[in-house]
Amino acid sequence: MSNVPVIALDAMGGDHGPEVVVPAALDVLRRHSELRLVLVGDEATLRRELASAGFSDETRCSIMHASEQVEMHESPSKALRGKKDSSMRVAINLVRDGIAGACVSAGNTGALMAIAKFVLKTIPGIDRPAIIASVPSMNGFTHVLDLGANVDCTAEHLRQFAIMGYELVKAVEDIPDPTVGLLNIGEEEIKGNEQVKQAARLIAESHINFVGFVEGNDIFTGNVDIVVTDGFVGNVALKTCEGVAKMISQGLKETFKKSLFSKVAGLIALPALRVFGKRFDPRQYNGASLLGLRGIVVKSHGNADRIAFARAIEVAMKEIKKAVPDRIGERVAEIIAANGGEFA
Amino acid sequence: MSNVPVIALDAMGGDHGPEVVVPAALDVLRRHSELRLVLVGDEATLRRELASAGFSDETRCSIMHASEQVEMHESPSKALRGKKDSSMRVAINLVRDGIAGACVSAGNTGALMAIAKFVLKTIPGIDRPAIIASVPSMNGFTHVLDLGANVDCTAEHLRQFAIMGYELVKAVEDIPDPTVGLLNIGEEEIKGNEQVKQAARLIAESHINFVGFVEGNDIFTGNVDIVVTDGFVGNVALKTCEGVAKMISQGLKETFKKSLFSKVAGLIALPALRVFGKRFDPRQYNGASLLGLRGIVVKSHGNADRIAFARAIEVAMKEIKKAVPDRIGERVAEIIAANGGEFA
Repeated sequence: MSNVPVIALDAMGGDHGPEVVVPAALDVLRRHSELRLVLVGDEATLRRELASAGFSDETRCSIMHASEQVEMHESPSKALRGKKDSSMRVAINLVRDGIAGACVSAGNTGALMAIAKFVLKTIPGIDRPAIIASVPSMNGFTHVLDLGANVDCTAEHLRQFAIMGYELVKAVEDIPDPTVGLLNIGEEEIKGNEQVKQAARLIAESHINFVGFVEGNDIFTGNVDIVVTDGFVGNVALKTCEGVAKMISQGLKETFKKSLFSKVAGLIALPALRVFGKRFDPRQYNGASLLGLRGIVVKSHGNADRIAFARAIEVAMKEIKKAVPDRIGERVAEIIAANGGEFA
Repeated sequence: MSNVPVIALDAMGGDHGPEVVVPAALDVLRRHSELRLVLVGDEATLRRELASAGFSDETRCSIMHASEQVEMHESPSKALRGKKDSSMRVAINLVRDGIAGACVSAGNTGALMAIAKFVLKTIPGIDRPAIIASVPSMNGFTHVLDLGANVDCTAEHLRQFAIMGYELVKAVEDIPDPTVGLLNIGEEEIKGNEQVKQAARLIAESHINFVGFVEGNDIFTGNVDIVVTDGFVGNVALKTCEGVAKMISQGLKETFKKSLFSKVAGLIALPALRVFGKRFDPRQYNGASLLGLRGIVVKSHGNADRIAFARAIEVAMKEIKKAVPDRIGERVAEIIAANGGEFA
């Protein structure tokens, strides 16, 4: 692989497929002159999309044909076994073969995880890949993992998530020693289940900046850079967060529609509300990374629009630049070596 | 116990103790002429607070002396074993002895749960009490349990939570057949852990209006009346929700402070924003119920103010009126009888 970053895009994935992926790809190419992209999917469709956008520079954006596509609600095992020529699979193959440095897909999360794990394999010492994403906090972003790849986790899995999250954030956010918290609950008697207590002991021995237990609200206070939890809890937290934000934004809109006076007030407040809305715009933090694989895979939200999908491509660019899988691999190898050839 | 509702208040509990409890108590007495309250705590202090408020009608608000109080960060087992004359314990004793129909405390949750369970015991057929609270949704309220009493739950516990939540909401919200959802995650391959899948089968056989799996965002869409989950996940979801709401309200305030124009816009929008803020004001839904006990116990937020604590007392009033523990007991007995003397 040359030094030019190349990213393979699953152009058929997501709710909107090429209609969103192609314009987003061209936006990112305009912003980053060193980047090259490979659009993977139905060649005729993609050629048409590129032509209608007036783009013809094949040295920067090429097409790789794939005859199938993974449906949004298809079972991951079916997608893995039955669709060897899906746009998702072919895009991941390009990463495995060193032709692309990363793959971005807005397709079915379960299928993406299953295919990526099967094709790329996990980094030695990592049992399971995890999904990490950034959510806005009061003073920037908090990175949360796992967001749904693993529902039944052991303490050792949580420790591996902590190490992977630490290395990712250190690399891509340029934070020299990011802080890691383990999600727990604060009730006095119980203070978490056994798995969480044991995970805290393991993470404390892992030579990362572990600050101990944090609670759900700490995701948003900005007290900690990385929050570690199992995929069930992480997914519920993320969905809860989306639900509250949506309810509040809808409530705000309704409030300003109630009377003539509030309508006028709303119009006057609009510019300020737009600034506010932009800060919490989920498109600005689209792009969740599948960590722990021998290659970079970024998952875009299924209903991402052009702006959001472009942002997911830029997440992948950053990870290529910082060689995130290599850094995770090195850190894990160090810990294993320090423990005389075993992880714990 | 007569037909007059009597509620015992742990007057020393919470971050503010009698300073908040006494004024809140008097507010509620003014609003509900049939109600009687017992303030439990240090007699001299309480007498002083009542006198300074100009209140002297001992037939409506009496004082029961208790020489100790449970600290906010005290271990529940220590509070249970070591402080037999705490205001919390004495208030719960009044419920056990039939002198009060309910107890309200803003004290330490773990201690309240431990003491209530020890003194009142659980309803036959219920293994563990659970904490339920209502959170605002797009079209009213959603009731979520468990919120932290139980971190390691079996499928059978989740089923018992579902039944208790159903009976509570049916009774106090006057919804004839409220809908119950089981919190899960939506990723395709995994669709929840084994415990959740098994719980879904058990709840489906329990003759309540079970709508199946829901996700974190459904807490706020208003699609479902009751959301069932284990205490770890429920607590994280609640804290996440509080965190997002706080971040957004702070972000909104900062937005309107940015420039002279946005300040003026903020002033003009203020009445509308106040209406909006009131709708999501957490004081309006203070008061979480400990369900599954042979008596009514309501937990107020520790830092509740006068308005919030008054609302928790009113939650207890509603549960007395509707005899919630009896309804849960009857429903559980029916299910056990239908299953030939066993729960499952």
